[in-house]
Amino acid sequence: MARVNDHYLKLAAGYLFPEISRRVRAFQEKRPEAKIIRLGIGDVVLPLAESVRSAMHRAIDEMGTIDGFRGYGPEQGYEFLREAVARHDFAAHGVDVSPDEIFISDGSKCDSGNMQEIFASEARVAVPDPVYPVYVDTNVMAGRSGRPDADGRYPGIVYLPCTEANGFCPQPPATAVDLVYLCFPNNPTGAVADRGSLNEWVRYAQQHRAILLFDAAYEAYITDPSIPHSIFEIAGAREVAIEFRSFSKSAGFTGTRCAYVVVPKELRGTGADGGAVDIRALWTRRQTTKFNGVSYPVQAGAAAVYSERGRAETGEQIRYYLANASLIRQGLQAVGARVFGGENAPYVWVQTPPGVGSWDFFDQLLERAQVVITPGAGFGSCGEGYFRVSAFGRREQVEEAIARIRSAVQF
Amino acid sequence: MARVNDHYLKLAAGYLFPEISRRVRAFQEKRPEAKIIRLGIGDVVLPLAESVRSAMHRAIDEMGTIDGFRGYGPEQGYEFLREAVARHDFAAHGVDVSPDEIFISDGSKCDSGNMQEIFASEARVAVPDPVYPVYVDTNVMAGRSGRPDADGRYPGIVYLPCTEANGFCPQPPATAVDLVYLCFPNNPTGAVADRGSLNEWVRYAQQHRAILLFDAAYEAYITDPSIPHSIFEIAGAREVAIEFRSFSKSAGFTGTRCAYVVVPKELRGTGADGGAVDIRALWTRRQTTKFNGVSYPVQAGAAAVYSERGRAETGEQIRYYLANASLIRQGLQAVGARVFGGENAPYVWVQTPPGVGSWDFFDQLLERAQVVITPGAGFGSCGEGYFRVSAFGRREQVEEAIARIRSAVQF
Repeated sequence: MARVNDHYLKLAAGYLFPEISRRVRAFQEKRPEAKIIRLGIGDVVLPLAESVRSAMHRAIDEMGTIDGFRGYGPEQGYEFLREAVARHDFAAHGVDVSPDEIFISDGSKCDSGNMQEIFASEARVAVPDPVYPVYVDTNVMAGRSGRPDADGRYPGIVYLPCTEANGFCPQPPATAVDLVYLCFPNNPTGAVADRGSLNEWVRYAQQHRAILLFDAAYEAYITDPSIPHSIFEIAGAREVAIEFRSFSKSAGFTGTRCAYVVVPKELRGTGADGGAVDIRALWTRRQTTKFNGVSYPVQAGAAAVYSERGRAETGEQIRYYLANASLIRQGLQAVGARVFGGENAPYVWVQTPPGVGSWDFFDQLLERAQVVITPGAGFGSCGEGYFRVSAFGRREQVEEAIARIRSAVQF
Repeated sequence: MARVNDHYLKLAAGYLFPEISRRVRAFQEKRPEAKIIRLGIGDVVLPLAESVRSAMHRAIDEMGTIDGFRGYGPEQGYEFLREAVARHDFAAHGVDVSPDEIFISDGSKCDSGNMQEIFASEARVAVPDPVYPVYVDTNVMAGRSGRPDADGRYPGIVYLPCTEANGFCPQPPATAVDLVYLCFPNNPTGAVADRGSLNEWVRYAQQHRAILLFDAAYEAYITDPSIPHSIFEIAGAREVAIEFRSFSKSAGFTGTRCAYVVVPKELRGTGADGGAVDIRALWTRRQTTKFNGVSYPVQAGAAAVYSERGRAETGEQIRYYLANASLIRQGLQAVGARVFGGENAPYVWVQTPPGVGSWDFFDQLLERAQVVITPGAGFGSCGEGYFRVSAFGRREQVEEAIARIRSAVQF
């Protein structure tokens, strides 16, 4: 009798983004003429950079030759890409990460979802609230929680409230936990963590022998030179942290698929016998057993992001999206909305009008303005009363969306 | 205190293929001038088909335009590819599989490794012996076994011996199990299952409400028209089976990365309360939560495999590898080796000389002939006394390897 993993059945409703798609589809069917502007799912829109496309074309041509053909690559990723990452994303910023601590993957969603597998099912997990749902859902699926309560919170998971009061940057909890998911620049709030905050987290992890799972997928959007791009800029972090990075938002790879994880050699977990266990060895085992590496043309494209031209082209894309974020901030502030984020991040976090819940606001905005945003409550109970606006849109659409929101909503 | 998943620590030694790589590297360092021929890892060598490359080039060009750019695609895969799969791989052979039962992925290793996640940790798992190590290792990692015994077998896993006596095609066990991994044409033995055997398995699964995890990654190599290509050719299979397929060996995609799973709508598992649970819904949830779809240019390339030209080109590749398999069979048979498989599969399964263990044979062959094969024992205790020769090589290398083996070894 094939018994299923009952933990899956604890998951509340649908995953946030499929639920948004469902509502948008239903609306579009009802109003087929409506010109919907989507600033909901944080998905890039600018064409893939020429440097990336050229490199992919060349790689595909190589694959058409006897000598240039490549079959299975290393599960951890090609050395040419891991070396480029180590040099440009870390060494160039004075951060010590070696190529054999880098694991190339097909996406940060996979990496941040899979990482929990190598830890005990009893591990106590802390997540910010609001939060990228993948961190929570994958732990629920692994049995680290009970069934959700009325607020959608899962007993067993430790929630770290991110509120206006703490600048949407959570402090370490009073109690001990084993794994802490952190994401800066933050999805969904657009908040950043300064050196002091990250330092506190590293100290907390050292004290409790916890591991920080640091999602830096949006680091390319940091404009303030005082804000760290990597957790490994903090002294001691190599003993307590894993970092996730992605080409999705830094180089427009959401449809091309490439990301990576950094697992430092110093990082240790604890075995049942109390002994130290090398986390990098466990992740290597996980990846070599369940993953077969990223498509060669895709890795060739990712490496081109680090060429002079690649950096110029992707830098321009990032500035474009940041300019969108600025327009969103200004446009909504001008009509009295309370606005956060969007300065070192591609997301703007906005309070809903008084008394309007965030899913109601989502539905109203779709109905009245045909603009799709993401309801804050979809990211957790502390997201209630907020909505996220993504700066990943074409300029004219962002401008049009702001104009429509301004005429449809009273803040 | 970050406790690790101790089940990982039960895994015996390294994963088979990394271990082979390690030994080959060590030999190459000792004998840098040696011209090693690799027929170990089953990795394709022929250039990627022109039709596939053209489609990928076009997709990349599209990605360079405002209107053609594609960001996040559906986690389940683009409809254009799922429809092509349903039509050409199933409907054309009279098998009923609909596009929404197909889940496109970046590899069968991932799919066959991840599938166990949606089942209970108490699920009783049966695997053939010898077996593709991923089926076993991923279940060990999930806690479905004890520590390995002296034979490398994991208590808790049910092994189904595949021997010369049963034609390397296991019969259903006398006891009830919940999940059964089957792979036909088989890796590593090259054996195929006829309609009668598959029918027995479907009956077994119906009787015990078990689920068959049917790996058909090598179905394109079937030449005998009486052998089923899909488990869904068997009546009743839609209620009891999941099928894995891959473009890796059928279209030379080991470095390009694309595969798919079929999860029929009728398939049900059992929840804690004894109720029926829709397996396709669970897999959808798994994929939407932990996976972000396959690179668009890769999916475009995979779809081109089904074009008239794509079928001609990949068909030619398959015939080339099958001709290699035939040369290997004949070459080794001619010197008295006992040879199996290689007629409807790209693998030839060969008995080692009397009294020579399969890892010893691996080392001897590397030393004396500079030929890399895969030791049968690496696939399980019933693989001891055998070795696998992969037909995925260039013709001149296969011929040279056979000549070297013939002059270096007495069978």
